[in-house]
Amino acid sequence: MNKKAFQDCYPEELSHCFGCGKNNTEGHQLKSFWLNIDKENLLDSTTIAHYQPDEKYTAIPGFVYGGMSASLIDCHGTGSASAMAYLAQNREMGSLPALRFVTGALNLSYLAPTPQGVELELIGRFSEVKDRKVIVDITLSANDVVCVKGQVIAVLMPDSMCAKTNN
Amino acid sequence: MNKKAFQDCYPEELSHCFGCGKNNTEGHQLKSFWLNIDKENLLDSTTIAHYQPDEKYTAIPGFVYGGMSASLIDCHGTGSASAMAYLAQNREMGSLPALRFVTGALNLSYLAPTPQGVELELIGRFSEVKDRKVIVDITLSANDVVCVKGQVIAVLMPDSMCAKTNN
Repeated sequence: MNKKAFQDCYPEELSHCFGCGKNNTEGHQLKSFWLNIDKENLLDSTTIAHYQPDEKYTAIPGFVYGGMSASLIDCHGTGSASAMAYLAQNREMGSLPALRFVTGALNLSYLAPTPQGVELELIGRFSEVKDRKVIVDITLSANDVVCVKGQVIAVLMPDSMCAKTNN
Repeated sequence: MNKKAFQDCYPEELSHCFGCGKNNTEGHQLKSFWLNIDKENLLDSTTIAHYQPDEKYTAIPGFVYGGMSASLIDCHGTGSASAMAYLAQNREMGSLPALRFVTGALNLSYLAPTPQGVELELIGRFSEVKDRKVIVDITLSANDVVCVKGQVIAVLMPDSMCAKTNN
């Protein structure tokens, strides 16, 4: 199993995301990995990531703000989608042409306040895998309690987003 | 019309949110206002906020990352919910007991890449107003193009979240 994080396989020019880009030194640099690969039943494969937010990312004192949870779930979702796309094509992650996904929709349910000072765990499961669209269902847990559930509808990055200038 | 931002009316101890708290000097400090108040038809009232993200909040170069849009929509939603709750009770915003809302669910559709270097505009509309639950539909636009649509299901903050320690 490849132990390199999904996000570390992104092309250099697409590695600036504040949530997960290795080239964004001020960002979260989330790292996602396979937890389990099932090549016979792709939908049974799962992904995992861990992250402990800095104290400044407060909602109210003691709790992580919702935008942080949204960001982590978003980036774990698009990363998992990319990894799954490579897996489905039986290609090594990072090989060209790149399969980089963006978020079409992000749906979040905040089930319990997310405590600060705790390493958060994200688990990704797949409910749909198509060439240009992957749906990832994600739980964000703290101390084994699910605090946020999210669904990321990820779509293959359109060429137009690779432009270096504002649209 | 009160020209003070909704978030500047939050109680001091509930003003640390990274997205909108005036006491979080490292955060975004989003400021939301009434665009229009319709006391006869509360649901016709609308809210507005403007924000230009720092360049570090990149998705890929030239575009704002999705976690930032999520954060802005989230905080504009809970702020709008709080303001609406005060309006519905015909109370001045900030008067005690505080009516502070948290996010129960956040649903986002990313319709177009959000360009960087542009002031973003958030408009909030209300689709449901109850004592303990307010639903706010929000558009996030850049250069008059809607880039993200979101719905915030905001619920009155439970007393348990006012504890100063982790749960």
